[in-house]
Amino acid sequence: TRSDHIKDGAAIYARSFAIIRAEADLDRFQGVAERVAVRMIHACGMTDLAGDIVMSEDFASVGEAALARGAPILCDAKMVANGVTPSRLPAGNRVVCTLDDLRVAGLATALGTTRSAAAMELWREEMAGSLVVIGNAPTSLFHLLDMLDGGAASPAAVIGVPVGFVGAAESKEALAADGRVPFLIVRGRRGGSAIAAAAVNALASARE
Amino acid sequence: TRSDHIKDGAAIYARSFAIIRAEADLDRFQGVAERVAVRMIHACGMTDLAGDIVMSEDFASVGEAALARGAPILCDAKMVANGVTPSRLPAGNRVVCTLDDLRVAGLATALGTTRSAAAMELWREEMAGSLVVIGNAPTSLFHLLDMLDGGAASPAAVIGVPVGFVGAAESKEALAADGRVPFLIVRGRRGGSAIAAAAVNALASARE
Repeated sequence: TRSDHIKDGAAIYARSFAIIRAEADLDRFQGVAERVAVRMIHACGMTDLAGDIVMSEDFASVGEAALARGAPILCDAKMVANGVTPSRLPAGNRVVCTLDDLRVAGLATALGTTRSAAAMELWREEMAGSLVVIGNAPTSLFHLLDMLDGGAASPAAVIGVPVGFVGAAESKEALAADGRVPFLIVRGRRGGSAIAAAAVNALASARE
Repeated sequence: TRSDHIKDGAAIYARSFAIIRAEADLDRFQGVAERVAVRMIHACGMTDLAGDIVMSEDFASVGEAALARGAPILCDAKMVANGVTPSRLPAGNRVVCTLDDLRVAGLATALGTTRSAAAMELWREEMAGSLVVIGNAPTSLFHLLDMLDGGAASPAAVIGVPVGFVGAAESKEALAADGRVPFLIVRGRRGGSAIAAAAVNALASARE
């Protein structure tokens, strides 16, 4: 058959990661941070993503520790939540996406914002010490900063990698400039749910 | 608040699509095919993706017609299935991902292949006239070609956009070279579930 050479999933992973480490400029990343960068590149097929990845100095250690002690993972999109591999999670961490909650449409109207941003209002009780993961909507990332400005409890760390042409780059720069919470961003337009989930999976386990 | 300028979801879409049409070289795409290319670019934030998108001449019309008459959408990954917007589907089309079926692990062992490829064996009864969407695993795309070689019923069209470093580019070139089924691919390493789902959403509805 046509696919005899690539039927071993583990071997495919190993070869992929070796190619990434040979091709990508990963000098800025060590330890857990390197693991995160490699897996993000793996998710999108682009080794030059490395140049746009920015993490606060404490992001990787804080994010890994938060998951290890059971932090919930609060996701802005179902595609992000579905990309998290349950078997990698170190403490049976809850993976939460509130976008389908029946209260969201009403909240969006009441707050005059998008459904993605309104859905985050339902995170308030779980936000303290959580891992917040924004892989889709710039409005969600801006809304997170608004919530923090308004006194919401702080997550342990934020993965802020919305994708797109309107507001995405600006929302990520705003998160990095804010500096209140350990963060991971991808500068510019690139990002998305697969890259976001890959970062979570890398923080969750050293397994490759 | 920080996000006052981008709280209107519809306006964000309109501006995003206008930016894409201004920046991307879309001359090769007309009508439904143009709509598909624009939405794929929207999903990944990269206007230069246009240069790597290849569709067979009949792909867009056949894919759109298949969905209109109720074709099921057979997805290799849950992230793909979750990225399909139900409200855009023209005929309440079923969105199928068999990866979590309890039979998959046993099938993978028996067939000596990955779980993603084994999961497709459970599509056989629905394959005729379906829209097959491979957004994650090159092994799945190769396995589809193996199944067709072996006499499996033909889908109406195939979206083949796995992402990655080992086998992804080769699997997509193999689909295009095969030519048996109307196809959409992204040449090279880029692809993924978001791009795959975006292509489905564009075929499903003209709404932007």
